[in-house]
Formats: sequence, C-alpha cells, structure tokens
Amino acid sequence: MSDTMKPVDPQVMQRIVLARRPQGFPVAQDFRLEETGMPRPAAGEVLVQATYMSLDPYMRGRMDYVKSYTAPQELNHTMGAGGVGRVITSRDPKFSKDDLVFGMFGWASHGCLPGRQLRKLDPALPPSTALGVLGMPGFTAWAGLEVHGRMKPGETLVVAAATGPVGSMVGQLAKQAGLRVVGVAGGPEKCAMAVDTFGFDACIDHRAHNSVLDMMEALHRECPDGVDIYFENVGGHVLGGVLPVMNTHGRIIICGMIAWYSGESCETGDMALQKLWRIALVKRLTVQGLLQTDHVGRFGEFLTKVAPPVTSGEIAYLEDIAEGLENAPEAFFAMLKGGNKGKQIVRIA
Amino acid sequence: MSDTMKPVDPQVMQRIVLARRPQGFPVAQDFRLEETGMPRPAAGEVLVQATYMSLDPYMRGRMDYVKSYTAPQELNHTMGAGGVGRVITSRDPKFSKDDLVFGMFGWASHGCLPGRQLRKLDPALPPSTALGVLGMPGFTAWAGLEVHGRMKPGETLVVAAATGPVGSMVGQLAKQAGLRVVGVAGGPEKCAMAVDTFGFDACIDHRAHNSVLDMMEALHRECPDGVDIYFENVGGHVLGGVLPVMNTHGRIIICGMIAWYSGESCETGDMALQKLWRIALVKRLTVQGLLQTDHVGRFGEFLTKVAPPVTSGEIAYLEDIAEGLENAPEAFFAMLKGGNKGKQIVRIA
Repeated sequence: MSDTMKPVDPQVMQRIVLARRPQGFPVAQDFRLEETGMPRPAAGEVLVQATYMSLDPYMRGRMDYVKSYTAPQELNHTMGAGGVGRVITSRDPKFSKDDLVFGMFGWASHGCLPGRQLRKLDPALPPSTALGVLGMPGFTAWAGLEVHGRMKPGETLVVAAATGPVGSMVGQLAKQAGLRVVGVAGGPEKCAMAVDTFGFDACIDHRAHNSVLDMMEALHRECPDGVDIYFENVGGHVLGGVLPVMNTHGRIIICGMIAWYSGESCETGDMALQKLWRIALVKRLTVQGLLQTDHVGRFGEFLTKVAPPVTSGEIAYLEDIAEGLENAPEAFFAMLKGGNKGKQIVRIA
Repeated sequence: MSDTMKPVDPQVMQRIVLARRPQGFPVAQDFRLEETGMPRPAAGEVLVQATYMSLDPYMRGRMDYVKSYTAPQELNHTMGAGGVGRVITSRDPKFSKDDLVFGMFGWASHGCLPGRQLRKLDPALPPSTALGVLGMPGFTAWAGLEVHGRMKPGETLVVAAATGPVGSMVGQLAKQAGLRVVGVAGGPEKCAMAVDTFGFDACIDHRAHNSVLDMMEALHRECPDGVDIYFENVGGHVLGGVLPVMNTHGRIIICGMIAWYSGESCETGDMALQKLWRIALVKRLTVQGLLQTDHVGRFGEFLTKVAPPVTSGEIAYLEDIAEGLENAPEAFFAMLKGGNKGKQIVRIA
C-alpha cells in the first residue's frame, strides 16, 4: 500500500453525488465525492460491496431537469448507475454472503437494496459482463432488433458507435442473421476494430466524413443496396447522412443520440424535420423509439440465447475499465467524447 | 345550350397537361388545356367517358422533379388523376357499354385504358364515392388505422384536415373503435362540421391557433389524457404542437404534409429534428410513413366493411364538386389552400 492511500474504514462508504446541473458539457465541478456512514440493511435488504459500476450515455440526459423516461437525477443524491458486487450482509433469504449480484448501486462503493431489486449473477461469467455485453447495453441491442428490426437475410444494417456495447452487439447479431453490416465510428482505430474484432463488413469514420454530404456519400459507397435498418445511437450528421440512403420500408430504431445529449448544435445541414417527414412518407419508413425497460420481461430469453455465444467467444465484446470510483467523472466525460472503445466500466474494488 | 358553348365534337377529347414545373405554389400558367383526337381502343382496351375526376394533394408532390413513391408528372403529358366514368366502347370482354368504372383517366374528358387497369363500380353507390369515401382517400384512412393504428378504446386520436376525405374517415373509424377523436381544421365552419357532421368530440381551428405553442395548448385542453395516435396529413405547426402532447408508446402515421408540399417555410418554432428525435426516444413513439398502395391487396376487405355504413349513412362524407374540366386548376389551387370542405371532385360530364 502506498502511503498516499488511506486505509479503508469498514464503517464508511464513498459515493459521488450530482452537485449541480451541468451547463452543456459536464465538468468535474458538477460532481462531489463524499464519505458517509455505511448503511445497515433492514429486513429484506442486502448490503453489497460494489466491484464494478457502469457508465452509460443515458446518465447525461438524466442530469438535466427535464421530463424523460426516468425521473431526473436529484441534486446532492448519489449518481444513479448499474453495478455488480459481492454480498457482505444479506437480510433476504434468497441471497447469501459472497453472492455475485447486479443492482442499481449508483456511483458508490457500496449499495444497500431490497433483495427483490437485485439479480444474482452466474459465477461462471465474468461479473463485468453483466454491465455490458450481457447487461443493459447488450439487451438493448437484442431487444431492439428482436422487437423492431424485422431483419431479413441480405438486407443492410447501419449502426453508429459501432464498437460501443450496443453497436457492437447490434452488428454481430445482424451478421448472424445474414445481413450486410456497416458501422460508423470515430477514428481509424475504432473502424479497424469494428471490422477485425466484431466482424462488420465495413466501418465509416465519422471524423473523416464530418458533414452530412460526406457521410451520405460514404454510406452510398458502403451500402450499394441502400440501408434497410439504421440503429440510431448518435444523432448529428450521421443521421443526416443516412436518411437519404434509406430504402423503402426501412426501419430506424432510435436508441440514443449521444451527439445531442449536451445540447451541441445540430450539424445536419439543411436536413430539418420537413425533410425527414418527406423521406419517412415517401419511403414508408418506420421510426421507432426504443427503451429496453419496455421489454424487460424478455431479459431471461436474451440471456439464454446470448450468454452461450458470449462464453464461446462467438460474440466478442470489449470493455474499457477505469480504476477507482474517484475517476468516474473523468471516465464519463471521456465516454461522452467517444474516448472509450468498448463498454465503459469503473472498477471500484 | 348558351351560344358561348361550342358543340362537343365526338371525335375530339379535352385534356390538361403540365406545361411547366411550378415554382412554389402552382399557378394557372403551369397548366395547359388541349384538344386531341379521340383515342381508339386497341384489343383489350376500353374507351371511357369520364364523368368525375379526383383532385388530391399528392398531385402537387408529383409536379416537382424529385424521386418519390411515384414517378414525377411528365411535362406536356396529361395530368394524372383517378376518375370515374361510363364505358363508351369496350374491347375487353369483362366490360360492356355503359358500365360504370374507376380508372386513372387523368385530367381529361376521356380515357382509354387496358381493362385490367379498370375497376367496375357497384351501380347502387353514387359513382363519385369511388373517388373519396369509398376510394383512395377512404382506403388510406382505413388501411392506416388498420395496419398501423393499434387503436384501443379510450385512447385519443388527433387528425388534421379533419373534414377532408382522409381526415373525416379517420375520425369516424376511430370513433367507432371507441376512441376520443379531436380534429384540427381551418376556420370555425370546418370545425363545426367536424363535430356536427362527422361526430368528432372536438375540433381545433389551426388558424385561430397559428403558432406551435398555441396549438400545443389547445391540444392539451382538448386531449386531457394526451394523444395516443396522430394521423398526420398536414405537417407545419400542427405537427409541432402535437409532438409534446404525445403519450408514451404513441403512434404517428404520416399520410401527407400538405402544409409543406409547395416548399412553404417550416413554421415549427424551434422544434427541429433534434427535438423530434428526443421526443420519439423518450416516449418510444412509432412514426410510420403510410402509402395506401402498399396495402392495395386489402381494398376488397375495405369495401366490404365500409360500403355498408356509408350506404346506411352511419359514415358521413362530404364532396366539393367543381364544374368542368377547364376549372380543375383553380379547384386544385383552392384545395391546396384548404378552400374545400370535403373531398374535392371535378364534374367532367
């Protein structure tokens, strides 16, 4: 142990709260690291030592005070997040000490939740997979394609944030279903990874094609038969470029729009609502908002189908692991800027 | 016969061609009335005296040279349009002289088409209904709700152009299915008609609520439980107002956008694509482009279900009939400006 590290007090836990609402892109001063007393589980509750926590783009949306699919993040409360950990004390008979569990522990070293809000993990799988490839992002990809994709072999799918945990799963599931899969990612390294690690047919660098027109031309080139499914993770000029390339009866599944979460200007050339409306009408597109919680009843089916190919390596995944709860804000900023390659995780203990 | 009228030459037919592509809103000089020789039906063809022709908003879209779901209207060719008429000469054994038929005769006094492109009409029904309530507009309404509506009793539907042939059918079918139905129409007369003639629960005057915010407030008032289905016929500020009022899992069926057909400015306040995308994601909307030709295999089912209530008067319809082929352009301009109350038809003979 280096002498700059304090010994951990077993009666104290760490957490990070939202200190103020970010103005545009979030900064360190929007957060505050606190120490508080260790919670004591009431009857039915379980105290968990968090080992990994998840960082996800949706968290930026919750920091604004707007009506959304979840309540906004409350000021001076622990930042919400999914995490995995090990049971310290259980007052729910369904859990025992040292069980591996998933729960919404937040940006915190420990969590104390009712047992019914926890999910026991298969100890044969690496616990961090419960935050990415076999967790919410992987399930989002699977449910989006399963419920709204109407995939047919020979069709073409485009997905942005191609090496991220949603995009990489979307692409691999679509490849398995016999589609041509074209990714969009930031920078040559990620694009190579989409092809080499995740088996995409091609990947377009949105930094090298940073206007609507450039993006459209690149998509035309890589999607000679047009685009049947666009899995939307980013918004911005990628959306602008893909719309004119959509095929009749195409499907756009809106899963996120990271480019727009912090109120950046909308770089879509002249392609406004009017143009989208015309394209949607003329091409009879289906544009569908997706939220994985609507389909949570199928999570077991997802695990049954997707855990085996993940275990066998048939479905690949990447994780970026930041070290230490105190580094969560910086890792979050980097993720919003596209600095991560795979699923962004923070190791807590 | 007044002496200003020329006797009709039985060997001559009249037609109106597109003389040039309109710049913005179309004007009389964009069209030309011509006389040509009467066509002679070849084997398998049928010569028809047109009695009524249909005017529809989609015709404006076809006048621009853009890729759309139909080929653009060709210059110096007869303007396309559906019509009904009476068989003069048949060289198809399935048709006889004096049969009433529907076909794409265009803006013309006569049509000569292969018999397989004609549909024989039930002589018990007024022939003009084949252009509106029991024709393409009525079928558009029925197919849109049937295929994409997912209507549930107690839900709320909003439809613009409420007294038009699509909107009035949408509203009446939704009322029959047990929904609250709120129309949007231009002016107090049409709004009263939506409620009194078509049985809507309420109708909002978009001229009296001519900004996004005003429209949104009026919709909030008339749709206290929010909007589950928006049947989109108009675009413009009505769309801007309805989006924030949409309920989770709402459906938007895009059937037209007359407000935008002639390139008018997009009066949607600050509500651009980015805002739509966020609303569609947060509320998990389904936005669906609708074209009735995709569902044409169900036209028979539509007639079987909808002709009886039309005959009985249970489903009401309105027709605006302009007199004479030569007045088709003026009637068309008026329709684009919302001057008609019901289905716009031109009586030709």
